[in-house]
Amino acid sequence: MSTAVRIAYDDLDLPLVVVVGGGFAGLELIQQLDGKPYKVLLLDKQNHHCFHPLLYQVATASLSADSIAHPFRRTVAPMRNVAFRMACATAVDPVRKVVITDHGEFPYDILVLATGSRTNFFGNSAIGSGAMRLKSISQALDIRSDFLQDFEAALYAQDETDQRRCLNFTIVGAGPTGVELAGALAEIKNTVLKREYRELHSDRMRIWLVDSNDRVLAHFSEQSSANALRYLRELGVEVRFRARVTGFDGRMITFQDGSTMESNTLIWAAGVKGRLIPGLEAGADIAASRYRVDRFNQIEGVPDVFALGDVALMREGSWERGHPQVAPAAVQQARTLAENLVRRAKGRPMRPFTYRDKGSMATIGRYKAVVDLGRFHFGGIVAWLTWMFVHLMALVGFRNRVVVLFNWAWKYLSWKNTIRLIIRPYVPKKAPVEDPIA
Amino acid sequence: MSTAVRIAYDDLDLPLVVVVGGGFAGLELIQQLDGKPYKVLLLDKQNHHCFHPLLYQVATASLSADSIAHPFRRTVAPMRNVAFRMACATAVDPVRKVVITDHGEFPYDILVLATGSRTNFFGNSAIGSGAMRLKSISQALDIRSDFLQDFEAALYAQDETDQRRCLNFTIVGAGPTGVELAGALAEIKNTVLKREYRELHSDRMRIWLVDSNDRVLAHFSEQSSANALRYLRELGVEVRFRARVTGFDGRMITFQDGSTMESNTLIWAAGVKGRLIPGLEAGADIAASRYRVDRFNQIEGVPDVFALGDVALMREGSWERGHPQVAPAAVQQARTLAENLVRRAKGRPMRPFTYRDKGSMATIGRYKAVVDLGRFHFGGIVAWLTWMFVHLMALVGFRNRVVVLFNWAWKYLSWKNTIRLIIRPYVPKKAPVEDPIA
Repeated sequence: MSTAVRIAYDDLDLPLVVVVGGGFAGLELIQQLDGKPYKVLLLDKQNHHCFHPLLYQVATASLSADSIAHPFRRTVAPMRNVAFRMACATAVDPVRKVVITDHGEFPYDILVLATGSRTNFFGNSAIGSGAMRLKSISQALDIRSDFLQDFEAALYAQDETDQRRCLNFTIVGAGPTGVELAGALAEIKNTVLKREYRELHSDRMRIWLVDSNDRVLAHFSEQSSANALRYLRELGVEVRFRARVTGFDGRMITFQDGSTMESNTLIWAAGVKGRLIPGLEAGADIAASRYRVDRFNQIEGVPDVFALGDVALMREGSWERGHPQVAPAAVQQARTLAENLVRRAKGRPMRPFTYRDKGSMATIGRYKAVVDLGRFHFGGIVAWLTWMFVHLMALVGFRNRVVVLFNWAWKYLSWKNTIRLIIRPYVPKKAPVEDPIA
Repeated sequence: MSTAVRIAYDDLDLPLVVVVGGGFAGLELIQQLDGKPYKVLLLDKQNHHCFHPLLYQVATASLSADSIAHPFRRTVAPMRNVAFRMACATAVDPVRKVVITDHGEFPYDILVLATGSRTNFFGNSAIGSGAMRLKSISQALDIRSDFLQDFEAALYAQDETDQRRCLNFTIVGAGPTGVELAGALAEIKNTVLKREYRELHSDRMRIWLVDSNDRVLAHFSEQSSANALRYLRELGVEVRFRARVTGFDGRMITFQDGSTMESNTLIWAAGVKGRLIPGLEAGADIAASRYRVDRFNQIEGVPDVFALGDVALMREGSWERGHPQVAPAAVQQARTLAENLVRRAKGRPMRPFTYRDKGSMATIGRYKAVVDLGRFHFGGIVAWLTWMFVHLMALVGFRNRVVVLFNWAWKYLSWKNTIRLIIRPYVPKKAPVEDPIA
């Protein structure tokens, strides 16, 4: 089956670039190719871009889901040579040069895979079936419903053990996602739980941050790691180092050393892996679930197919194991690729990509954040304001920026933000291990 | 099983009022009883109040779900004698004076049923299984996902018939909900569809408003009905009078006169019925799915049990068939009941309720609304601004008012609002006829 989809720009006599995935890399690429001598088709299984760095604030009811998402059609509406189709790519046929999706086949002249990453349970399905994840808006809303349901359930608990189990929140993985989530949950304990659940002893809520390493934010400077750890402890997060979770049945967590902990909620933030698409195994070199690409982001061994961002592994400079799977790397690669595609159209040679590490930042709570900028490491309120400014500016859409800014102001000035809503209850048993929209 | 739930005010030696349902009536009642000589317990199956009059704007992607909901715990947090429990009341035992819920039993001294209403299919299960409804945030989000999915599906349609079926939206019932929903869908056709779905012929999208009567807004003045009809037609809504829908299989609608129409979407806004709770049948007089109450909102024949709002039927003045099932009637009854309960606590006689009809209003689109205020009937931009002001002021929570105001300004100034998100796809086959949280 071939999809005879008419696209508004069909009469343009230009080569067709198909971009699979509208995350940071895919979105940047289509924006850079606006008005350039290509027809561009963006495919995504969602109808919107999701601003992942703020997902944890949707999960902890600081931001509404709508304020961190932006519909692709709004982005491409003013672009004459760019179109969008909602479709889930299931395979690539590099010989026939088509992408196969749940809505038929799309031919391409040039294919760009920007499919991102998904949660990596490292093969441990005993954890995967019960653990919550934070890679999509839907999962964030599940976490939001779950902790609010747990608070309500704690009021009905039969005994103290049962109540403590409802109020135990365990987060695995002390990277930015785990740290930011743990800090936000601790703020909920210190403000919302005390004020709005007067019948509960708020000290029965415990937030555990578990990591197999011996520091939080392992990729940050030592100074920032130490600051983040101090902030977490000030907020009441209990950090457990050199611990590995090996099992979770929805009520009890098992650790590698044989110890156990009763907890209704386990949130897995311990790793991601590239989201590969079947069909390229023969030609492509795949390492650590990422496509190995050359300095032009071209997948080695597969002509006219490129990979960007989390799903691409480029050895370059000191990045022997590829660039970090973060938004800035994805955006920079996309910009260079757009320039190179324009060069290619003009018959000029492409320029190799070089990653410029602009630093890292993470926020733990009000006035508590850490920033690494080259040799500069700073924390506290300046880091916190920097973090807010950078994230606000990076959000897609003016409306979203205004709404997020207002929500943050309202939250941090009054602690009375009011989006703690259980709109669709989370039902643990029905959660699939590999969510297709994750 | 009796739920030994400790409530923070347990040491207060006061009679206990249990309020079932936190809609307009229940919320107003607990706010009026704040600081009064009663202990008050609000039970609701949701953890938030939903501002129903704006549900259609959530369904049509003008407002985010979070901005029309407000968590009950935020409302009761500052109230010393009021508490909230999330629980779904399943029965009442008026002899033992307990409410039975999915979380055990709650004893009461005084019980107030403010359980509201749900969609009335008038026994036609052939419609109920496929039709969409608009009585909860979850259902509003389903409608939002559904029309956006239909737009995307239209792009993949095999032929023109298939495409037209995707783009046919039929709303049954020309009351305020149906009229406002039809108008909002027409605005989407005239703005979003034209701009963001360039490959579709926007005139293939058709919005049908079907009613068995021969006018829209039948309870409004004739002038307002005529204005509303004109506005609807100006926006492109096709109104079909004196038609009754008798069947819908998810693809085709059947009318009583035997005619059919191909349509993927049928939204049922043709009626509601009171949400009764089992256990009162023996003593109470139930008419038209509402508890018959006296002028003090006391259910006739059941001591110490009151009913408010949509679920109560009070004959008073010219209201031979009860007050209209609208928010102002619910709020006014709740205020009078709160005063009467205080009088009762002081041993004073209660005062009979008199409904003050403050008028009706409905909005059809930008600059297009109708308002009936006693003898005054007006439409156009003045009515539209009145409608916006009244609804904004009635919203619960300062944050919600600011966010809604900003979203309206953004939408009506730019037509570029960006919450057209399919966050959780709507799957028609799985929709239950009687949604427990509807």
